[in-house]
Amino acid sequence: MSSCIFCKIIAGELPSAKIYEDADVFAFLDIKPVNPGHTLVIPKKHFENIHDTPDELLAKVMRVAKKISDAILKLGVTGVNVGMNNGIGAGQLVFHAHVHVMPRYGKDSFSLWVGKEYGGNERAEMAEKIKKSLTQNV
Amino acid sequence: MSSCIFCKIIAGELPSAKIYEDADVFAFLDIKPVNPGHTLVIPKKHFENIHDTPDELLAKVMRVAKKISDAILKLGVTGVNVGMNNGIGAGQLVFHAHVHVMPRYGKDSFSLWVGKEYGGNERAEMAEKIKKSLTQNV
Repeated sequence: MSSCIFCKIIAGELPSAKIYEDADVFAFLDIKPVNPGHTLVIPKKHFENIHDTPDELLAKVMRVAKKISDAILKLGVTGVNVGMNNGIGAGQLVFHAHVHVMPRYGKDSFSLWVGKEYGGNERAEMAEKIKKSLTQNV
Repeated sequence: MSSCIFCKIIAGELPSAKIYEDADVFAFLDIKPVNPGHTLVIPKKHFENIHDTPDELLAKVMRVAKKISDAILKLGVTGVNVGMNNGIGAGQLVFHAHVHVMPRYGKDSFSLWVGKEYGGNERAEMAEKIKKSLTQNV
């Protein structure tokens, strides 16, 4: 658990572009987004994936994923993909349960797990935009 | 709402390979699966997508998606993708909220929304296998 990079992000031992945090759930931008705004929503307590995450905690994670989807929609995207990859064969790379919230644009190159890097301050700016939209949404 | 094909499936007006049903949630096999066993989990009450589905109902849908993911894992897959596409731009085709549960195999041609047809009795047999595994799981 101590070697888990998402646990380190939650603990503040690794930096992240945080979108949301409450007692049980943490959300931050994926560093290799499918599209700008691609967010990861995770339980603070370490579980591997959907299979071992308790129902009540999964519900809390999904409530936040929905909230962030709503916030992202307000930014003028054409759709939002919400996804969870469970197991190596499903493309899971970090074994701390996480829900991807992926904004879609009119013409994009959406392909699960083929990400693009943020340039310059784009990531921090996008984090601010979503946090602002999220605050307005509460 | 009366023209919604998923509402018709729930009402039994259209056939489906049903996997699970309770007071609030219904699950059945996608007719164009990414891989055999690809299941759709839906709220019985009509909502469009994640944005308008109440939190409590989304939690119930996810509880079932998790349960079915567990059941599918027991069939020897290498992973399970769980996904929800919200809005035309995200590839949503039927506007009744649904969560995809997609089994993955060692070598498959996983590509979101490029499905394969079932042949012969494959669909009905797969439904039975998953229902059996699900029952053992309860």
